[in-house]
Amino acid sequence: MDRYRVIFWPDGKEAVVEEDAIILEAGNVAGVHINNLCGGEGVCGQCKVRITKGIVEKSTKSVSLLSREEIQQGYVLACQTSVRDNLEVEIPVEARLEGEQILTEGETLMFSIPEEIEKPPQEEGGVSFYSPLTTKMHLKLPFPTLEDNLSDLERIYREIQRKVKISDPEIELHKIRGLARTLRKNEMSVTVTLGRKNNNFKIIQIEGGDTSKRNFGIALDIGTTTVVAQLVDMNSKEILGTKASHNRQSRYGEDVISRIIYACNRNGMEPLNKAVIGNIGDLVKSLAREKRVDLDEITAVMAAGNTTMTHLLLGLEPCFIRTEPYIPTATSFPVMKASDVWIPAHPDGFFGVLPCVSSYVGGDVTAGVLASGMGDSSKISMLMDLGTNGEIVVGNNEWLVCCSASVGPAFEGGGLKCGMRATQGAIQRVSISNDHVNYSTIGNVKPYGICGSGVIDVMSELFKNKWIQPDGKFNAEKANSRVRETVEGQEFIIARAGESEGGKDVVITEYDIGNLIKSKGAVYAAATVLTKSVGIDFQSIDRVFVAGGFGNYLNIEKAIMIGLLPDLSLERFQFIGNSSLSGARMALMSNHAFEKAQEIAKRMTYFELSVNQDFMNEFIAALFLPHTNQNLFPSLRGLI
Amino acid sequence: MDRYRVIFWPDGKEAVVEEDAIILEAGNVAGVHINNLCGGEGVCGQCKVRITKGIVEKSTKSVSLLSREEIQQGYVLACQTSVRDNLEVEIPVEARLEGEQILTEGETLMFSIPEEIEKPPQEEGGVSFYSPLTTKMHLKLPFPTLEDNLSDLERIYREIQRKVKISDPEIELHKIRGLARTLRKNEMSVTVTLGRKNNNFKIIQIEGGDTSKRNFGIALDIGTTTVVAQLVDMNSKEILGTKASHNRQSRYGEDVISRIIYACNRNGMEPLNKAVIGNIGDLVKSLAREKRVDLDEITAVMAAGNTTMTHLLLGLEPCFIRTEPYIPTATSFPVMKASDVWIPAHPDGFFGVLPCVSSYVGGDVTAGVLASGMGDSSKISMLMDLGTNGEIVVGNNEWLVCCSASVGPAFEGGGLKCGMRATQGAIQRVSISNDHVNYSTIGNVKPYGICGSGVIDVMSELFKNKWIQPDGKFNAEKANSRVRETVEGQEFIIARAGESEGGKDVVITEYDIGNLIKSKGAVYAAATVLTKSVGIDFQSIDRVFVAGGFGNYLNIEKAIMIGLLPDLSLERFQFIGNSSLSGARMALMSNHAFEKAQEIAKRMTYFELSVNQDFMNEFIAALFLPHTNQNLFPSLRGLI
Repeated sequence: MDRYRVIFWPDGKEAVVEEDAIILEAGNVAGVHINNLCGGEGVCGQCKVRITKGIVEKSTKSVSLLSREEIQQGYVLACQTSVRDNLEVEIPVEARLEGEQILTEGETLMFSIPEEIEKPPQEEGGVSFYSPLTTKMHLKLPFPTLEDNLSDLERIYREIQRKVKISDPEIELHKIRGLARTLRKNEMSVTVTLGRKNNNFKIIQIEGGDTSKRNFGIALDIGTTTVVAQLVDMNSKEILGTKASHNRQSRYGEDVISRIIYACNRNGMEPLNKAVIGNIGDLVKSLAREKRVDLDEITAVMAAGNTTMTHLLLGLEPCFIRTEPYIPTATSFPVMKASDVWIPAHPDGFFGVLPCVSSYVGGDVTAGVLASGMGDSSKISMLMDLGTNGEIVVGNNEWLVCCSASVGPAFEGGGLKCGMRATQGAIQRVSISNDHVNYSTIGNVKPYGICGSGVIDVMSELFKNKWIQPDGKFNAEKANSRVRETVEGQEFIIARAGESEGGKDVVITEYDIGNLIKSKGAVYAAATVLTKSVGIDFQSIDRVFVAGGFGNYLNIEKAIMIGLLPDLSLERFQFIGNSSLSGARMALMSNHAFEKAQEIAKRMTYFELSVNQDFMNEFIAALFLPHTNQNLFPSLRGLI
Repeated sequence: MDRYRVIFWPDGKEAVVEEDAIILEAGNVAGVHINNLCGGEGVCGQCKVRITKGIVEKSTKSVSLLSREEIQQGYVLACQTSVRDNLEVEIPVEARLEGEQILTEGETLMFSIPEEIEKPPQEEGGVSFYSPLTTKMHLKLPFPTLEDNLSDLERIYREIQRKVKISDPEIELHKIRGLARTLRKNEMSVTVTLGRKNNNFKIIQIEGGDTSKRNFGIALDIGTTTVVAQLVDMNSKEILGTKASHNRQSRYGEDVISRIIYACNRNGMEPLNKAVIGNIGDLVKSLAREKRVDLDEITAVMAAGNTTMTHLLLGLEPCFIRTEPYIPTATSFPVMKASDVWIPAHPDGFFGVLPCVSSYVGGDVTAGVLASGMGDSSKISMLMDLGTNGEIVVGNNEWLVCCSASVGPAFEGGGLKCGMRATQGAIQRVSISNDHVNYSTIGNVKPYGICGSGVIDVMSELFKNKWIQPDGKFNAEKANSRVRETVEGQEFIIARAGESEGGKDVVITEYDIGNLIKSKGAVYAAATVLTKSVGIDFQSIDRVFVAGGFGNYLNIEKAIMIGLLPDLSLERFQFIGNSSLSGARMALMSNHAFEKAQEIAKRMTYFELSVNQDFMNEFIAALFLPHTNQNLFPSLRGLI
């Protein structure tokens, strides 16, 4: 079979693939990533690429999702186009995941992880109370004699116990088969991978020789919208790389409810499960390839996600999450094997999932509480995790309460006319002065759309400059060339077509602003009801941790100005980015942290808001900028 | 396809089978058992049956293993003959396992199991420290509400913990899949099967409704010669049935050494492993069928066997057991699943194996120490387990020492001219007075051969009556019609052809007696060296437990007379039959006993005799009746 070279631009990375390979696969081989919402089914049109050299056949599907103009310019769908020539392919900004700035705590973590976890006190031999989920240990066994005639397996146990004080670890039968020869072929030198489940240890594998330097783990954040994977060196604790992709389940519904409905239809579970497993598989394989790690060297995986995402990942029925009284199948999960869920790693590698609290407060929130350290402090803190759902946690080392409200996708850049995720080309900061709009984009490139943090900025600036009124309507007096009337209502032009990457105006519409007011109102109302439920007010809260997929930036002051965050002094706030991923990584790297997560999940008391009349009242009161009760925002008094 | 009826005589049991079914299989279906040493390969000739009605085709193999006379009488090999007609089949005594008296402690146990294990103090809910390996628990869960919105799995945990004080049990992912529907289909009524591994519990299955009354277990004794299975009701602790068969591995070698050699040849492991798994499978299926137990209702299996048998059962390399310094792959074994080794039971049912001590002291001996209770007593006891290997244990609740000596198959009826296992038709008791021989057979039928206990009797009677001399040679003065000269030397006729089932004399030859002297000498020498090694003599031993496959009878006095057992007063001896099976059953029925077995195995100190010069000296000194040093047998002074 003929082989062809495909060069991808602007990176110049290349792949040599067999005839009829799909361009999308060639991209995988080359290590460049092409947006692919529908999992390669040719229905989302996200993977448009332009052929700049070489000849391809255009598929019918490819053609139907492209404009005549695009076809003339050489655009095709990467998932529908086979390689039958040496090609050069340009990946346009909207199809690139490469430069994506999805929040990964490695890049953005601004708060400190408790020192004990980051730098655990090492006992001799390296397995301490703070040891990671898996540890490799090189053993040089003494050769057996008539006097020292312990069996092979007990000889291994004895040597482990000479290094660390543990009782006999568990082991599966198939690991013992062939052990006699492995030992004798390697002159009694072996490396044992020990997995830890609470206080029990298990031998995951026994390799000949010394492989102890090669032990890797994966932390996963399984978001409704985005899946993030992080490759970690289990010995040095170094983060080797982080990759993210759009959750392929999106084609079955944008929010958890529509996915539950899909999953609970006949045969609906399998495609949803396969979609997210496919996401994870591609991310892990791509990280491993780039960092030259064998998949078998990945011996531990830890995932955090909301309750529905966790159910779909594990293949658990999510059906009763949706209907009163909202019961998930499980909120705590056994430590599994990577192969139980088809994650590409050592098949017997440990796979852990952070525990959930209830149907609408998941392992991502447990991870956030863990990562923020709020469960360890005697002072009261609040965690606000703002994704498609907004979860609020309030508490300290004695008590924790939590609730969840449907927020909509606006803060993740979804559901807005020009919204986009926090990736390259997204407007993330906006300021307006003297009718002049200043903005900056992720990657400092031409703007393509606007992400969550940009949306908060633009709203607060519009409000501050009185372009919009407290009810979110445009101010007729301010009408000028930046505000225009369309068939769908008024909209404000942030970046003009001439400045933008896509050649179109980047705008925010009155309808967008209405949606954003509902989103911020839901968050504020939830936080209000939750604090009231424990008899405190916002002033009693010492620290507020804000987490979410806003990008790597959030202007707290502007978020207060639109009434999203309570009006507290700025130094009480801390933006902690993707705390779901940081929490997962902490549990991966420290059994102590994993146990703490289990304790946190059990300790959190869940308040169900869906049937709460107070919440409805508070929500309605919050549908104003910043709020119908301006006394709640004293610092804005001069402004309003 | 046509179906035919096959009636088996003398039982009259019948089976309807499809055309071309093998007669051996038809026997399985009918629930009658036909001896089948070679696993149905047509090479051992053990499964001769006589067709008394109907027509069969005689296979070439069938014919080559039968005499012309047998062929004329209608004999065929059951394993080589297809059913193509309605048949009546007579199973001759030598091909029948049905009436086999292989020792099973249910029938022969004469000593008491510690009461705590037999009648454990029940905590509320039935899971006590003395609980069996698996327990079924019916749970009626409260329906979830908005106030009581625990997940399905945590709801089950809570209900279990209301009954018994345990932490959250382990569970495998696939058990949780579908749980939501199981609960709601059964109106929140489920039965949980809890398996116990030391202090950890695991949920083996969750069934809809109340199935708690149906929970069964299997105890297994995997002997080199014989495999015994026992079906137990895990609730009532009642033994429902016991079945035994010849270990099909015998075709690859009669003793452990020849089987190790076979297993360590290319591809040698698989047939040996399959052979014993086949044994177990047939026994379990047959017990289940007879007692109307579904295989899925068998949730626990516990096996005991010598170290080599345990390795071959689990598929572990036994290769280094055979060569100095004699190292097994493992002596302790994880609790596995029945499906890990293809035992027909609930696929996730717990499968435990009693721990071994060393290459030549196995789980059967651990079981014997457990069953005898000698490890609990402050007084010193000795266990003598006399099979193809003889294992001796001496000790008390503070120390235990053990050793093993190759004894040969004589005490199991093997390797003798007319030897047979302790099954129907075997001469088991013999007395000689005034040149007259009295004997009795198992099943009180015509004698077909002689088993271990009969052999000990006849030797001691010949010695007492001076038919043989202390060196085992026949006394020329006593020569008469019962002693005759053959080309192979002299032999003594125990039963004449006219009285016997096979129509041949049942004899014991001078060569047989020579072999038996070596066997008894090895046992006595091993016991001597072991007691000396701890600085005591036989008189310090309070109790002697004798275990082994002698049949359900052993005359201690006569065993002392030939110098097999030390010369202690008779009340110190206790014959405990198949203590390997009783120990396995105890560990199956009591986690406390299983833990105790693990403690016993770790506590036993092994003495290697193969390189011990003392042992060689003692062995040579013991090659006399009763011993070269007659002072060791003061009670026989009058006789000798």
